[in-house]
Amino acid sequence: MRQVFVAGVGSTSFGEHHDSSITELAVDAVNAAISDARVDRDRTGALYLGNFVGGQLTGQEVLAGLVADGARLPSIPSTKVEGACASGGIAFRHAWLNVAAGICDVAIAVGVEKMSHATTSKVTEALNCAMDMERDGTSGLSFPGLFGLAYRMYESKYGDIRNKVSSVVVKNKHNGLSNPLAQMGAAVSAMDVEDSMLIADPLRLYDCCPISDGAAAAVLVSEECIAEHSHRSGYQPLVEVLGSVQTRGAPFISGHSSLCSFQATVEATRQIYEMTGIGPQDLDFVELHDCFSIAEVLDSEDIGVCPRGRGADWAHEGRTGIDGEIPINPSGGLLAKGHPVGATGLGQIYEAICQLRGNHPNQIKDAATGLTHNLGGTGVACTVNLLRRADA
Amino acid sequence: MRQVFVAGVGSTSFGEHHDSSITELAVDAVNAAISDARVDRDRTGALYLGNFVGGQLTGQEVLAGLVADGARLPSIPSTKVEGACASGGIAFRHAWLNVAAGICDVAIAVGVEKMSHATTSKVTEALNCAMDMERDGTSGLSFPGLFGLAYRMYESKYGDIRNKVSSVVVKNKHNGLSNPLAQMGAAVSAMDVEDSMLIADPLRLYDCCPISDGAAAAVLVSEECIAEHSHRSGYQPLVEVLGSVQTRGAPFISGHSSLCSFQATVEATRQIYEMTGIGPQDLDFVELHDCFSIAEVLDSEDIGVCPRGRGADWAHEGRTGIDGEIPINPSGGLLAKGHPVGATGLGQIYEAICQLRGNHPNQIKDAATGLTHNLGGTGVACTVNLLRRADA
Repeated sequence: MRQVFVAGVGSTSFGEHHDSSITELAVDAVNAAISDARVDRDRTGALYLGNFVGGQLTGQEVLAGLVADGARLPSIPSTKVEGACASGGIAFRHAWLNVAAGICDVAIAVGVEKMSHATTSKVTEALNCAMDMERDGTSGLSFPGLFGLAYRMYESKYGDIRNKVSSVVVKNKHNGLSNPLAQMGAAVSAMDVEDSMLIADPLRLYDCCPISDGAAAAVLVSEECIAEHSHRSGYQPLVEVLGSVQTRGAPFISGHSSLCSFQATVEATRQIYEMTGIGPQDLDFVELHDCFSIAEVLDSEDIGVCPRGRGADWAHEGRTGIDGEIPINPSGGLLAKGHPVGATGLGQIYEAICQLRGNHPNQIKDAATGLTHNLGGTGVACTVNLLRRADA
Repeated sequence: MRQVFVAGVGSTSFGEHHDSSITELAVDAVNAAISDARVDRDRTGALYLGNFVGGQLTGQEVLAGLVADGARLPSIPSTKVEGACASGGIAFRHAWLNVAAGICDVAIAVGVEKMSHATTSKVTEALNCAMDMERDGTSGLSFPGLFGLAYRMYESKYGDIRNKVSSVVVKNKHNGLSNPLAQMGAAVSAMDVEDSMLIADPLRLYDCCPISDGAAAAVLVSEECIAEHSHRSGYQPLVEVLGSVQTRGAPFISGHSSLCSFQATVEATRQIYEMTGIGPQDLDFVELHDCFSIAEVLDSEDIGVCPRGRGADWAHEGRTGIDGEIPINPSGGLLAKGHPVGATGLGQIYEAICQLRGNHPNQIKDAATGLTHNLGGTGVACTVNLLRRADA
């Protein structure tokens, strides 16, 4: 496998985009990433687009072809990939795979979702397609319900965690305040979280990520391509993709031995640490899939950056803050930045690249190595990526 | 790139499957392909699933994970790909890419769709997501309407073709009669075609493929894997994938300079002929994307097996029949076999493999080299594959 670099990234803000179509959002992100990368459009050999509910909420499929056309790319393979909330991460991994395997020298990954125009019940119905209709469909559970169960199971194992879990929200909402792309940054207290509207007991409004529109994109290139372009002035610092892993977990609730851990995450990080020789202790920051406050707790343990059963404690003790031992979601995460589902995995890449280039609004000092983690459905699909500043 | 072989194929019948879920259909096809290939499930390194409207018509996404789980595959990357009617072909190409690039030694591609339970208006609405909602959505055109326009343009260029186009239908319906997997094989006359119900002028009922349920799958393996398994008795004759190409065409109607040709097909076949050194004159048969009778005419010219403007004539003169110069759709094609959208590209692979193994119900004598062609949307996505009997 060849070395792969992220030469450029682009992103719309996450939030409500009533004046842009789903195609336009994605094209905007791709164009921004291409400008940032300063590569010729004609060099592009593949485009992958992550999207989850575009068909249901906007009536638009074949998005990969539409976006490749809109971005004036050549007649290249243009493929939509779907793995629920991990769709964006899967798009990134496939662009990486194409360059790493030598299929092409330049590949683009883009993720997009447009949801805010639809009614909440329609959005909930669409998102629930990420469950197994046959085995879990009749339970009446939506995703807040599922993560509410995970919260309860974690609580039964480790005792009362309400106040500690609120610390996750307080941290991420605070981080989001400085992120110009974030939808829901806010200065909130633990009490604000705990007093917010009950959504699916015990999860409250601030425990849940919002409904978002948005798109993010990345341009991945080979070393050969880098060599050609390195003379260009103003070229951004390079970031290498040390590894990109995609795994599958149980697609239904009873397939998990415990709701306190997602096997797809555990397996994906095991593989990427083995592949790269980098361990959780070597990471300078993590952007992980905090679709709910409790999800950040579980993910941080599954990834291995917090000890098992201590994820909520670490958040509460400030160890996952921007100046902590292992900053988690300095972008604000899904809770504050927003969760335009198919875009999220690439939004994380965008944030990680900004960190590794040293120009993030919530910059981690000397950030050289970061991990992104994107999880879909009931833990059915997971992607993780290890990114490192090329001069580190 | 490494050599890639199709070690096994499996398929459900195409038609109405009221007693099977979309997941079950796909799992059945995968299990059949694995049995046929006689590979260990644990050797599988990737699964790609082609599906188009599963979310909208069955409320089920994350199908790749569900099917990998149902087929008891390991925790491998399991990815749904979508490119409208070309989704199955895109899945096949990605499985091929994984093995060709050395990512894994065994990859599975499966395509599936379940549509027959939904109302015709709901199906039409879902299929129309393959158009560009912004540019063509307000035209009121559905796909029969679009191909009706293509028919009219072809007619204005080459004169009255009604009777010749009917020959496409008569041939494919006849071929379908002997295919046990076909939904709509029938002995029909040109008069039957021309007297059938008007759908979108000038297209009549028999000019249009039916609404179908079904799934088909293929197991692709490397040479190394073949070497390990070749001692197994009863192992099926090998078929090599000489090339697999995916292209992008215009995603909206006015993006085409003429509706009598799809640029994505022209470009895909140009690439695959160049890649393999095999030309249209070397093909023993073609399975192509005859979603409508006129589509077979256009495709046969775009692929280069019939001279431009002569596709309808060739069908009428019997040159594309099973015993003709270039048999087209000996399976019955989409018109007679059916068109479970996401499954179609893999259904074509299934049919081609049977031909190349010499055990097709409509066997082409000494078939050694075949091409499959799968086209999506308004020509926005195309995949073509060149398959050859390994001992040829």
